[in-house]
Amino acid sequence: MEQKGILTVISGFSGAGKGTVVKKLVEEYKYSLSVSATTRQKREGEEHGREYFFLTKAEFESMIEQYGLIEWAEYVGNYYGTPKSYVEDCLAEGKDVILEIELQGAMKVRSQFPDALLLFLAPPSIAELKKRLIGRGTETMKVVEERMQRAREEGRYMEQYDYLVVNDDLGACVEQVHGVIQAAKLRTARNLELISRLQEELIQY
Amino acid sequence: MEQKGILTVISGFSGAGKGTVVKKLVEEYKYSLSVSATTRQKREGEEHGREYFFLTKAEFESMIEQYGLIEWAEYVGNYYGTPKSYVEDCLAEGKDVILEIELQGAMKVRSQFPDALLLFLAPPSIAELKKRLIGRGTETMKVVEERMQRAREEGRYMEQYDYLVVNDDLGACVEQVHGVIQAAKLRTARNLELISRLQEELIQY
Repeated sequence: MEQKGILTVISGFSGAGKGTVVKKLVEEYKYSLSVSATTRQKREGEEHGREYFFLTKAEFESMIEQYGLIEWAEYVGNYYGTPKSYVEDCLAEGKDVILEIELQGAMKVRSQFPDALLLFLAPPSIAELKKRLIGRGTETMKVVEERMQRAREEGRYMEQYDYLVVNDDLGACVEQVHGVIQAAKLRTARNLELISRLQEELIQY
Repeated sequence: MEQKGILTVISGFSGAGKGTVVKKLVEEYKYSLSVSATTRQKREGEEHGREYFFLTKAEFESMIEQYGLIEWAEYVGNYYGTPKSYVEDCLAEGKDVILEIELQGAMKVRSQFPDALLLFLAPPSIAELKKRLIGRGTETMKVVEERMQRAREEGRYMEQYDYLVVNDDLGACVEQVHGVIQAAKLRTARNLELISRLQEELIQY
């Protein structure tokens, strides 16, 4: 009586620490991470098939045409998307899958997977967010301002998510996200087989 | 920015171990326990104002008339009910309140407190439930059969609850209930003030 896996979408402003939180969840609790496809440049230390599948624009557009993506979006001039088959296979095997994607993608996931948990990772304050973005040191101030502008747009839709987790202390944040996913496993809607079994046994005794 | 408390209703078949689970939750995590009023006989070791407010039938009926109860019901010839003011005061002070009540009462709570979490505590199997009821040794076989009959009726409505937690291992069960309540605190609907603050800050930076 294996339960179907839970699909969790984690969104959040650039600089909110999504990547680190997701990495910890995968390391400590063995969640399956859906690797996205993207056309953006590989950063130092990133690996094809680990952080992203780095595709050319032509390759990405071919996947779109073949309905091979759950969702895709363009962001700061690059494509980002979620290959469909990996997610579906994991869920069917009872594995819990995490998707790290932005607002538009999250809404598309919800329309295709109504049971998905949509979780928004917030910084403790916007001052802290900007500090983290500048401190990262990998971006020009122009890119920092672009990311802040993007945050202003995304920030209007935080209420659309099911859960809001503040990433102040990394360890606490990881525990909270894990707790939300574990609690979702206990929803009655996910335990109808167990309920049926108990109901049948009640008639016998 | 104190959050309002969360009201959690815990129901379950007689013999599922509700009392023990609730006691642990109060001891270990400082939940506020709503003490019910009842007209049933006090059992050995029970104390007025701790397990229940033990009232006469006349006293109980007077509370009903004065709208002093969130819900009340008759069960195996006795009244059980939830005094209203204690629950409302706790929630307003940000305290999380646990109510241990049965199906009919749970549904009445939901209609008055739509944000309440309704949690059903299930035994691992019905054979185990019956074993526990008999093993308790405080009831005649006639009462055991009455409780089983009641379980058969209640069992049809398990899907009405938000969460289903199996009480197999007591410690694990307590952690799961606690986890469900803590996760509920992170729902966006309960964090609209934080969202507003971040949205305002986004405009400033």
